[in-house]
Amino acid sequence: MTLGIVGGTGEIGEGMALRFSQRMPVIVGSRDAEKAVTCCQTCEVTLDQKGLPCTICGTTNQEAIDASDIIILAIPFQHLVPTLSGLHGFEGKVVVTPVNPIRRTEYFIYAPPPQGSAALLIQEMLPANARVCAAFNNIAANRWRALNEPLEYSVVVCGDDADAKQEVMNMASSVPHLVPLDGGPIGAASMVESITPLLLNIARYNRIKDAGVRFG
Amino acid sequence: MTLGIVGGTGEIGEGMALRFSQRMPVIVGSRDAEKAVTCCQTCEVTLDQKGLPCTICGTTNQEAIDASDIIILAIPFQHLVPTLSGLHGFEGKVVVTPVNPIRRTEYFIYAPPPQGSAALLIQEMLPANARVCAAFNNIAANRWRALNEPLEYSVVVCGDDADAKQEVMNMASSVPHLVPLDGGPIGAASMVESITPLLLNIARYNRIKDAGVRFG
Repeated sequence: MTLGIVGGTGEIGEGMALRFSQRMPVIVGSRDAEKAVTCCQTCEVTLDQKGLPCTICGTTNQEAIDASDIIILAIPFQHLVPTLSGLHGFEGKVVVTPVNPIRRTEYFIYAPPPQGSAALLIQEMLPANARVCAAFNNIAANRWRALNEPLEYSVVVCGDDADAKQEVMNMASSVPHLVPLDGGPIGAASMVESITPLLLNIARYNRIKDAGVRFG
Repeated sequence: MTLGIVGGTGEIGEGMALRFSQRMPVIVGSRDAEKAVTCCQTCEVTLDQKGLPCTICGTTNQEAIDASDIIILAIPFQHLVPTLSGLHGFEGKVVVTPVNPIRRTEYFIYAPPPQGSAALLIQEMLPANARVCAAFNNIAANRWRALNEPLEYSVVVCGDDADAKQEVMNMASSVPHLVPLDGGPIGAASMVESITPLLLNIARYNRIKDAGVRFG
């Protein structure tokens, strides 16, 4: 099982690469393949210095998709449509969206597209047999990257394909302390995405760094 | 500081009365004053059997409003508009809404009114100087009522009146283990309300009873 990260050189993509490349082969994609290669070298050095394993390589977003079984769309919401429009080959693949549409006013507010959520927009844009799951929406980039700190959070996974959802839940389980939870169909993803602007408000108004969420 | 609970004989109202009447005087309101009186007697007996203090009395919703400083609207969303339309006297009072607009389809989904949230609808219906705060949206009735179990949850409080918000946060702090968090202005309440249908989905799809939420 190979994991491709589209937008893998961004903050959240880099953080996820650091965590997952210890556990499964990761292909970091970027618009700029050279940037992806550099990012992977940094990741290898960081993990090597800690005596941790690492299987990672960098390439273009398209090659990352073509060579992977599970693809994480680590793309800011505002770049989602232009980025996805230029990519193909999602047929039959598990596509994970941690994307959160957020508007900043006086405070942060959930601002979904007309489809109802980023997840539903992505499902509409991709081929019908792409197996879209929303997951990892509520973990801050800095938390992914803080390798000395455990990720003691819940990961709610939403999707219409039960097998794909189970694969993503297994992937979450592979990271120590992360607790995957079935959040229901992809239509329920809006309620997971909307937690992220709430977390940003909680962090700001209560001076908590990189707030996260646990259910139970 | 006296706490009035409008709809205090419903499941969530009864649960909150059980917890708060140990700590501050509580006036339980109901459309049916006799029902409120009976509910309070049950509450007194329950707490007395556990050797816990209790200051509580039952009356009509209107009298509960008139005699209280803080008013909790423990009303199901579908009864909110007709109930509020028949009540008055909210001027200058702290009004707490734990109300969550939820639609049940194949799964539970957040279904806010055109105002954007139950909290904003309530603020629109009440006099301009009512000090509306959203709080206690994400704790299940059964958890309030399970007096032998600690309420180890976060309570996100949203509101535009800083003093009112602080009073509600203090009220939450008075219950052991509850952790109040400032969620920002009342406009941010939609993201707190929408956690509740997500909790219902999580409970259902993962077989967790009365799931709750902790931020941090």
